[in-house]
Amino acid sequence: MRATVLHAPRDIRLDDVDDPQLLHDTDAVVRVVAACVCGSDLWPYRGLHPNADAVRIGHEFVDIVEQVGADVRAVRPGDFVIAPFMYSDNTCLLCQHGVHTSCVNGGIWGRPDRHGVENDGGQGELVRVPQADGTLIATPEQPDESLVPQLLTLSDVFPTGHHAAVAAGVTAGSNVVVVGDGAVGLSAVLAAKRLGAASIVAMSRHADRQELARQFGANEIVAERGKEGAAQVREIFDGIGADHVLECVGTKDSMAQAMRSARPGGRIGYVGIPHDAVVDLPSMFGRNIGIAGGVAPVRAYIEELLPGILDGSTQPGAVFDLSLPLDQVAEGYRAMDERRAIKTMLTV
Amino acid sequence: MRATVLHAPRDIRLDDVDDPQLLHDTDAVVRVVAACVCGSDLWPYRGLHPNADAVRIGHEFVDIVEQVGADVRAVRPGDFVIAPFMYSDNTCLLCQHGVHTSCVNGGIWGRPDRHGVENDGGQGELVRVPQADGTLIATPEQPDESLVPQLLTLSDVFPTGHHAAVAAGVTAGSNVVVVGDGAVGLSAVLAAKRLGAASIVAMSRHADRQELARQFGANEIVAERGKEGAAQVREIFDGIGADHVLECVGTKDSMAQAMRSARPGGRIGYVGIPHDAVVDLPSMFGRNIGIAGGVAPVRAYIEELLPGILDGSTQPGAVFDLSLPLDQVAEGYRAMDERRAIKTMLTV
Repeated sequence: MRATVLHAPRDIRLDDVDDPQLLHDTDAVVRVVAACVCGSDLWPYRGLHPNADAVRIGHEFVDIVEQVGADVRAVRPGDFVIAPFMYSDNTCLLCQHGVHTSCVNGGIWGRPDRHGVENDGGQGELVRVPQADGTLIATPEQPDESLVPQLLTLSDVFPTGHHAAVAAGVTAGSNVVVVGDGAVGLSAVLAAKRLGAASIVAMSRHADRQELARQFGANEIVAERGKEGAAQVREIFDGIGADHVLECVGTKDSMAQAMRSARPGGRIGYVGIPHDAVVDLPSMFGRNIGIAGGVAPVRAYIEELLPGILDGSTQPGAVFDLSLPLDQVAEGYRAMDERRAIKTMLTV
Repeated sequence: MRATVLHAPRDIRLDDVDDPQLLHDTDAVVRVVAACVCGSDLWPYRGLHPNADAVRIGHEFVDIVEQVGADVRAVRPGDFVIAPFMYSDNTCLLCQHGVHTSCVNGGIWGRPDRHGVENDGGQGELVRVPQADGTLIATPEQPDESLVPQLLTLSDVFPTGHHAAVAAGVTAGSNVVVVGDGAVGLSAVLAAKRLGAASIVAMSRHADRQELARQFGANEIVAERGKEGAAQVREIFDGIGADHVLECVGTKDSMAQAMRSARPGGRIGYVGIPHDAVVDLPSMFGRNIGIAGGVAPVRAYIEELLPGILDGSTQPGAVFDLSLPLDQVAEGYRAMDERRAIKTMLTV
């Protein structure tokens, strides 16, 4: 089969590799229908923490089940399934607490598991899925092709935006600022709207992303950044700032922007992987700013989010502004790296 | 009148000073019945950030109203009142949000206000109270003398422990770890118990504080610190750690202890003033640990906490293990500095 392999920074190729096999009775093998490129895939692509060897990559994908191990009960060959960006058993104590990303039997695509066995990446034709019963979620029936991009967002980007909103405590009537206009930030706008937020400010300097933010439910756009941007946010929110801030970038500047945009007593939900982000604890302390979030436990949210996708009331798939066949994966990465695309879908 | 003045590190005296006068129509002047020494008073006492000049000190006190300005409506001369450790108007937008510590017209005892006018400290015979209607809370009747220590805890220490519990999301049935066995940590144990926590672990190495922690509702004591202490906490809580951790110290070690003691997806409520405390954001991110809290908006909590004090169902006054007349204030500080006392009450 063919799978995406990162050989070196910016050297990414679709290689011929061995077909995956069932290794455990709890495994499934799935045929990928569509995958996509995550903002976090760009970090190794750009050479942050380079790997010594070529590595498989990709962790967002939807599939048709091909084979299941003897102990798999929840999915059957032929099912259309969503694979969250980490696998998990969905039964351990931490999964029961909704923290599937800390599952004691969990792991991540494209990395070795705790026994050193390599997991497949998601940007390929076939994937061996560990803990298939816990990991995969089947749709009630075969979805129409037009639903595939919408369903694909459930593997990571939309529930990640949702996690930011939930962690920040967004509920009906909330006022919200979203820092970051990438696919996650835009998804966070949609998630906040879905949760009933009354007022949503999207911070964005790019016309196309501003447009999508408005389509997803933003009432206002703030293009300025830094202190000027925060001053505009405060002006919009009674002169004091927002109750809920969704931090969807992970840099020092974006976290500072989030802190400045929150009112005293406000809550930041953060899902941007912290690269150089830091928090100023004494300043947070004095202003009673709380921060929660982290790597999104996508598996915990899919049952809640799926019905709105299936009935068309929630359409997060608009984050895909580029769709390419899998054999053009290199161009898919380039387009995102050069910010020509918000998010690339790869059809298999 | 006599008031406590910090002249230099460890040089603290009861000096004769001018009686306070009403400066604004919204002021009151109160006669202090009892005051106390806060752990945070020990920082200037020990010479952290020394002041150039002698400064008034003290911010926890209960009083009888002596005089009120023309615009004061909520309290009258003769009322027994509780003064929270910051004053506030209780009407601005931030007070309405329950963040009285960020009140646009608020300030702190013993420091200059926003116009440069010095405020009295609380460890003295008389205090001018700005924003008296917003700040002071009168008891329904003159309290019995035995209630005074209990009521005095409402000025800071008990609502601060309560704030840690609220910020950490403690509710009925919660499991909780409290880091810190000072007066705030012990108050946090009591606050968690009052909120219905089912299981409370107090981390303490001192027999007398362990005893008080048990009296306040702790089910278990962990004397070890660091990784060994966290391992014991995890063992107590299903091998994964606590849902709610109350950080009541503010040092690097105590914050690390709090982080290690929380389960993935857990929440830390922090009220220890961060001296050298830091948070490891990437580690928090990976484990989905949230942190909230800060300087406690005591004024927001007093109405909720007062009835339990008045009916005797909540008895936080046990944190005072030393009571001295005001003229022995220097010994009161020494006893806390040398850890001979948990918390000193000063009777006036």
